[in-house]
Amino acid sequence: MAETRTAKTACAIIIGNEILSGRVQDRNLAYVAERLNDFGVRLREARVIPDDEDAIVAAVNECRREFDYVLTTGGIGPTHDDITAECVAKAFGVPIEINEKAAEALRARAGDRIDEARLRMARVPVGGKLIENAVSAAPGFQMENVFVMAGVPAVARAMVDALASRIAGGAPVRSRGVVAHLSEGSVAAALADIQERFPDTDIGSYPFYRSGRFGTTLVVRSTDAGRVDDAVEEIKAMVSGLGAEPEEELEGV
Amino acid sequence: MAETRTAKTACAIIIGNEILSGRVQDRNLAYVAERLNDFGVRLREARVIPDDEDAIVAAVNECRREFDYVLTTGGIGPTHDDITAECVAKAFGVPIEINEKAAEALRARAGDRIDEARLRMARVPVGGKLIENAVSAAPGFQMENVFVMAGVPAVARAMVDALASRIAGGAPVRSRGVVAHLSEGSVAAALADIQERFPDTDIGSYPFYRSGRFGTTLVVRSTDAGRVDDAVEEIKAMVSGLGAEPEEELEGV
Repeated sequence: MAETRTAKTACAIIIGNEILSGRVQDRNLAYVAERLNDFGVRLREARVIPDDEDAIVAAVNECRREFDYVLTTGGIGPTHDDITAECVAKAFGVPIEINEKAAEALRARAGDRIDEARLRMARVPVGGKLIENAVSAAPGFQMENVFVMAGVPAVARAMVDALASRIAGGAPVRSRGVVAHLSEGSVAAALADIQERFPDTDIGSYPFYRSGRFGTTLVVRSTDAGRVDDAVEEIKAMVSGLGAEPEEELEGV
Repeated sequence: MAETRTAKTACAIIIGNEILSGRVQDRNLAYVAERLNDFGVRLREARVIPDDEDAIVAAVNECRREFDYVLTTGGIGPTHDDITAECVAKAFGVPIEINEKAAEALRARAGDRIDEARLRMARVPVGGKLIENAVSAAPGFQMENVFVMAGVPAVARAMVDALASRIAGGAPVRSRGVVAHLSEGSVAAALADIQERFPDTDIGSYPFYRSGRFGTTLVVRSTDAGRVDDAVEEIKAMVSGLGAEPEEELEGV
């Protein structure tokens, strides 16, 4: 899809040994992707890295230079393996210190259970702006174009939602999908032809096997809703022509 | 965890616009991670990138130099958006051509439905070695230390399993987990202390909320099973000391 140079881009950095070991299935990426599109920002890459200082510092530094926005999830809890905040401070070459507003929120929630370990969650790089956490008190923070957020999905989602006021994007990408109970192989040639005639859209084919039937969902994406509609009409006609009933998807991205 | 320099590393490259748009939840990473560990290889990073030539060529070239093995999933189907094979050929600076063995398997399966679009799936970079696909016929392939596989999970898993004979690793990492119905904050200090006394292990804390109860799973990982066992005993004692019943996880990674 030919995009203007003003289209904002983002990279997501998912931090966690448990995802790279296969123990935990990441559940944040899809939500981050959808919300960023709502904000008019294109998620162009995601990286999954370990709770390792060198890996985190390198990824944050590479990505903050390459993309307009960087969103990180994971590693801001109270345990010793939560090292994201200090790594981000190191990446920016600034000290890290207890943020008083964050400490206050944590003390209010922990009561007399507050200790040094829990107060680790109030440590924020100097210059960082807090991202509120209504779910569990420990805040995320923003350093320039980098947003550092929790890994726990309920908290991550609340923090991502809070970014609406901090991220300035362009036009969101519109998306419409047509479900066809046909094999990818049988639509491939005609679909390629439609793509060629709609170079200002991205057309993709996503095969599935559901309820004993196989098929593929043909998705058209573009910032121009009119072009999406036109391409969808051609795809529906193509599917009918191949002897199948085209079904419009009710929602999708 | 202090690892020997002989420990083999890997990076997974997950290719697909549909994952970066939030439409499809990736389901291959966790399986790749577990199987790589079975082969004695450490998955050190994963990248999720679009069906875009520049992005695929750059990621393949960076990663094949930085890691011992690279596993890619996605983009080897028959539609126009499936461009992984030609991008890998470009990354290696070789031509791409119809592989006769792959074409034969595809013709056998497609019968008289075989056409140019379907035959795209038989295009393999010159020098590539096929990775069999018993599930749907279209093969993956290996180019040096890069393994290119399908995105559809059932097929990806079959291909990953087939790598057992092609990947030489070191000792697998052993893992044991202790479930504690305690907050991360309450175990953090004592856990950090245990980690310090077991620097040859990786100890992580993974909070959860299940069946109306919160808690955290404390996981010890190391190639040395004895050290894992020792650390687990200390963690169990620590959990009991905090007034909770430590529960051994029956399986985990």
